[in-house]
Amino acid sequence: MKLVTYVLKSDSQAKQYLGVLNDKGDVIDLVAEGKKILHKDFPDTMLGFIDAGNVALEDTNRLLKLNPSALALSSVKLLSPIPKYNKNIFCVGRNYKLHILEGARARGVDPTFPPVPELFTKPTTGVIGHEDQIHWDSRVTQQLDYEVELAMVIGKKSINLTAENALSAVFGYTIVNDVSARDAQKAHGQWFKGKGFDTYCPIGPCIVTADEFGSPSGHQLSLKVNGEIRQDSNTVDMLFSCEEILVSLSAGLTLEPGDTIATGTPSGVALGMTPQKWLLDGHVLDLTIEGIGTLTNTVKKIH
Amino acid sequence: MKLVTYVLKSDSQAKQYLGVLNDKGDVIDLVAEGKKILHKDFPDTMLGFIDAGNVALEDTNRLLKLNPSALALSSVKLLSPIPKYNKNIFCVGRNYKLHILEGARARGVDPTFPPVPELFTKPTTGVIGHEDQIHWDSRVTQQLDYEVELAMVIGKKSINLTAENALSAVFGYTIVNDVSARDAQKAHGQWFKGKGFDTYCPIGPCIVTADEFGSPSGHQLSLKVNGEIRQDSNTVDMLFSCEEILVSLSAGLTLEPGDTIATGTPSGVALGMTPQKWLLDGHVLDLTIEGIGTLTNTVKKIH
Repeated sequence: MKLVTYVLKSDSQAKQYLGVLNDKGDVIDLVAEGKKILHKDFPDTMLGFIDAGNVALEDTNRLLKLNPSALALSSVKLLSPIPKYNKNIFCVGRNYKLHILEGARARGVDPTFPPVPELFTKPTTGVIGHEDQIHWDSRVTQQLDYEVELAMVIGKKSINLTAENALSAVFGYTIVNDVSARDAQKAHGQWFKGKGFDTYCPIGPCIVTADEFGSPSGHQLSLKVNGEIRQDSNTVDMLFSCEEILVSLSAGLTLEPGDTIATGTPSGVALGMTPQKWLLDGHVLDLTIEGIGTLTNTVKKIH
Repeated sequence: MKLVTYVLKSDSQAKQYLGVLNDKGDVIDLVAEGKKILHKDFPDTMLGFIDAGNVALEDTNRLLKLNPSALALSSVKLLSPIPKYNKNIFCVGRNYKLHILEGARARGVDPTFPPVPELFTKPTTGVIGHEDQIHWDSRVTQQLDYEVELAMVIGKKSINLTAENALSAVFGYTIVNDVSARDAQKAHGQWFKGKGFDTYCPIGPCIVTADEFGSPSGHQLSLKVNGEIRQDSNTVDMLFSCEEILVSLSAGLTLEPGDTIATGTPSGVALGMTPQKWLLDGHVLDLTIEGIGTLTNTVKKIH
């Protein structure tokens, strides 16, 4: 199933709701419909739903079969599926071979392939949702870039995962745009700052549960700028698979429910193009991953 | 004033209290004494206290003059001053010249000095308090190292700080031990993983408010392993001052109350020694910063 967090466009108080998308893409208010049809108290936040485990999943599957009422998607504003994180977003760098080659070429260095995943984070303050604006501040970058990435959302507290049990720790999958200011990324040595600006972490539009998504390998992922395809690849091309990322990340490091891990981007970023086609004011980005949906954001120049 | 978060050693429920250290180093229960003496409701968490701003500071100063009761420090267990963070700890790498030289020498490369602060993070799951154990897992590192660092705690939501107003965003200061697994730090390229293991972020023992700490420049900071002085320097030797770090970090990136920013470590780490004296099971670390106090932790081999 596909889970979303949303507010009603008509609600000036912006109360947040947990919803499920039905087959038509309409939004079911989980708490209200669960109460009405099943006389049950459903969790009212995504983290609450994740913590509730299989019970919440099974109850929701039961509810979906009983024709709950649904709102038109156009009447709601989707937020990041987890609107308020308790820690930074985990990220993996340089995880697709062609992206490593294009990055090395752009920087004029010989390509190297990481022997283990390169891990960094993006701050909670960067998180925005579907159809929110990415802010371009020309005081901090002249090289605004995009990166479509499959992201895993952790379902249960885990440490020292193995290749065999790693995926059982995953609640579901979503899309992350690892927006990057290439000049700042380079200047600061470590990648945090160039990837950590406000609005640089669009997430969404939904979380697809692991049972529905199936194996995280073999999904097409693409990114368009103003309709032009820039990135178009498949998660099967990852250097380190989702299992390998989880094993590496969780070695001696406890993962918690809701933790979100972006798994790296394929080739086609602006950095790697000749000439480099940086993001500009008004550009519309559509990030699509097979089995999840499309995350759309627009660039807004704020200075 | 010096603020702490603590539990009573006698309390099996481990209820958390916000406290103030008096001149003798005893602990005043802020909520209980504030109620009894001033008939006021004081904030009961550090983040609540920070959010309450000058009112909380002024009320507490008033309380301290009225001889509130205090508990012996030995009857409490200090926690990290902020026990549960809402985002990762911000860190600055390579910010003391002699530390840059020793690091380059140890890695066999020419030293370079960063033109702007090198920023990265440590996850919330790594945070422990005074007298907690640092876990050494020999499966993830054979090169366990220490780093004494002055850390700033943000007092108010801030973005695009300037050199002139940067320090006005700081609520207070504390000590961070940026515990580092040098082999993992090197292998993963980005520094997050080698510095992000569970228990690798001791913080404390208290937060000293900015008014009492004064200028963050000019404070001695030192670190002992089993009583042997390993690091002994002064914050005046920072490559980037606290003001410069705040200006760089907050450019286009919103800082929030409670955000904690470790400002880099001076020379004397195990990595830079000949031979390299890595931390081992049972080693006791004392990190002292003038005007704050001493943060003590013991290494415990868990595997």
